[in-house]
Amino acid sequence: MTSRTNARLAKIETPALILDETRMMRNISRLSSHIASLNGGLRPHLKTAKSIEVAKRVLADGAGPATVSTLTEAEVLAAHGVRDILYAVGITPQKLERVARLRTGGCDCSVIVDNMVQAQAVAEVSARTGQCIPALIELDCDGHRSGIRPQDPALIAIARMLHDSQADLRGVLTHAGASYDVVGRAAHAQLAEQERQAAVQAAQSLGAAGLPCPVVSIGSSPTAHAIQCLDGITEVRAGVYTFFDLFQAGIGVCEVDDIALSVLTTVIGHQRDKGWIITDAGWMALSRDRGTATQTVDQGYGLVCDPEGTPLQDLIVIKANQEHGIISQRPGSHSPLPDLPVGTQLRILPNHACATAAQFDHYRVLTPDHTAPLPRWERFAGW
Amino acid sequence: MTSRTNARLAKIETPALILDETRMMRNISRLSSHIASLNGGLRPHLKTAKSIEVAKRVLADGAGPATVSTLTEAEVLAAHGVRDILYAVGITPQKLERVARLRTGGCDCSVIVDNMVQAQAVAEVSARTGQCIPALIELDCDGHRSGIRPQDPALIAIARMLHDSQADLRGVLTHAGASYDVVGRAAHAQLAEQERQAAVQAAQSLGAAGLPCPVVSIGSSPTAHAIQCLDGITEVRAGVYTFFDLFQAGIGVCEVDDIALSVLTTVIGHQRDKGWIITDAGWMALSRDRGTATQTVDQGYGLVCDPEGTPLQDLIVIKANQEHGIISQRPGSHSPLPDLPVGTQLRILPNHACATAAQFDHYRVLTPDHTAPLPRWERFAGW
Repeated sequence: MTSRTNARLAKIETPALILDETRMMRNISRLSSHIASLNGGLRPHLKTAKSIEVAKRVLADGAGPATVSTLTEAEVLAAHGVRDILYAVGITPQKLERVARLRTGGCDCSVIVDNMVQAQAVAEVSARTGQCIPALIELDCDGHRSGIRPQDPALIAIARMLHDSQADLRGVLTHAGASYDVVGRAAHAQLAEQERQAAVQAAQSLGAAGLPCPVVSIGSSPTAHAIQCLDGITEVRAGVYTFFDLFQAGIGVCEVDDIALSVLTTVIGHQRDKGWIITDAGWMALSRDRGTATQTVDQGYGLVCDPEGTPLQDLIVIKANQEHGIISQRPGSHSPLPDLPVGTQLRILPNHACATAAQFDHYRVLTPDHTAPLPRWERFAGW
Repeated sequence: MTSRTNARLAKIETPALILDETRMMRNISRLSSHIASLNGGLRPHLKTAKSIEVAKRVLADGAGPATVSTLTEAEVLAAHGVRDILYAVGITPQKLERVARLRTGGCDCSVIVDNMVQAQAVAEVSARTGQCIPALIELDCDGHRSGIRPQDPALIAIARMLHDSQADLRGVLTHAGASYDVVGRAAHAQLAEQERQAAVQAAQSLGAAGLPCPVVSIGSSPTAHAIQCLDGITEVRAGVYTFFDLFQAGIGVCEVDDIALSVLTTVIGHQRDKGWIITDAGWMALSRDRGTATQTVDQGYGLVCDPEGTPLQDLIVIKANQEHGIISQRPGSHSPLPDLPVGTQLRILPNHACATAAQFDHYRVLTPDHTAPLPRWERFAGW
């Protein structure tokens, strides 16, 4: 293990969050090509990356469109020139003043609602601030979380209230969160079509009621990659695909080799009678996410790789304390435990890129130039 | 729910990390009184709080002694006048230069080792920098993680190597992590005595070999509260007790009413046919920690309280997405679902204070003065 990558990583203190730019660019190209081949629009979600440098690479141009999960993401992106931002978490009425301020600053920030209390708050703040806040109505296409069903009469009532107010009825939106619970392209394609139909049905209902619906927005990483028809859809949203992770590999959306994010760690000890290798990356670095626990292959707290990013056969993080990771063979493995002395660096592929990245305030980026030191890309956090 | 607390919280944007100072001070007093009654010394662990304001209140005086889990904690505390800091994670050889720099700056920073590679690195950096770095040897008292067994001949070999080098053999240390796996004071007292005996046995072995052992350090929150005899022990370490959490309540170390940390959240929607209340605190705010999942009472992603901090009967966070929490009744509950309209603020008690606090960069502090706005106490993070 004395390669060029190894030498570049050797100077980095652990634990550290490593982003493989080559893999990330490949992931970005893959989805943008797929959506372009369907003549669709893409509104990438920045909730995973929370980084201006990643935003520059994933957004079609510097101005958006973009999706965010917090108003802090929206504010930071807006300050860096992004001008079309959808805040895709049902709006908390108390947060609308910040949305109005973003709009005053020239950013087309839109929100989502799924009930009349939210819609009335959007109308009220629009009237009070003179900002015509755009709202999309969130639809429930699969029962997994928020949204109203496309056939629910509340859809028309909320839409009409928004349309008749000083707010802006921007359209409808749904997210097939249930796609995370099924495996394989066929299953994801089926949910993608269900997602599409729910959104199109709602848009048609609005049209039949004489209401506008300029935006018809769907998306999740699994369905965005599997969808084959975008008829009636104006935009697709997805986020974790920029980095991918073991969970996405476990449901067949990517290969392990596509995972662009890893945590660099160092061996600090052993319990040789138990076959344990102890490292300085515990859950504070890896996160507590155990998303693969219910998948066919349980990856523990992460899959162990050498510094090149090549998995070490059957080694996973079997246990994590705050600042200690315990590495051992996957249960049932008969591979010999490799000799990994104290001081050895390893890279851990995460269960869930969004959760692991959130444990760090910056990335160290494995750029294609093998001779350069790893640039530092800042992350932003908070709400 | 129109009390004084409610009015103070109403101005705070959610999600937010709320620290109840009155409960925290009670928790701090409880353990310091107990250890003082046994004529023991206390070295509080700052890994949970990561806050200068909390450090001021939990450390016996401004200068320490303190325990930390990262060198960043040590560096920030040292910059604020703490002069006696134990970095209680087995040292990564590459981090020793930072330890030497802390010592050059006047902070008595000590490290822990459990193998010869680490000990040799401590000796080498001590010789090279002229800083006599103190090292404690980590003991394994219960098989839960790191350390060497007290009777292992490696103990004397490592101790002698350190003593004969330009490093400083500071003593021995152990941590009864297994205390988290048992319930009740009697079980914790038994593990506390096991922890004490392991440390005392190792100290006696060093003495018999003609080696010094000035520090004999034990501790975990469960054993520190249950221990009845500190013979042969110079200091006790504990950390999460400053805030406590549902996990500690579940193993009987505290009551739910002692939990000083909570996440303030706002209701953003409902799925009434499923009995779901949807909030703006998902796992990004609560953390992915599901520590109570294997306890008698599974608290989901947290126990739901009104703004006063009083639990709402049987309501827990049953599911968490990145920025959405789904609240519902505990499985099997027959309590009616309370009416919690969109915009209602709630407080969520966490499974694991260390993990939940780490999701935020500051606390908002419920001070005893009910008329004051909530001060903001910064947290530090990273490694």
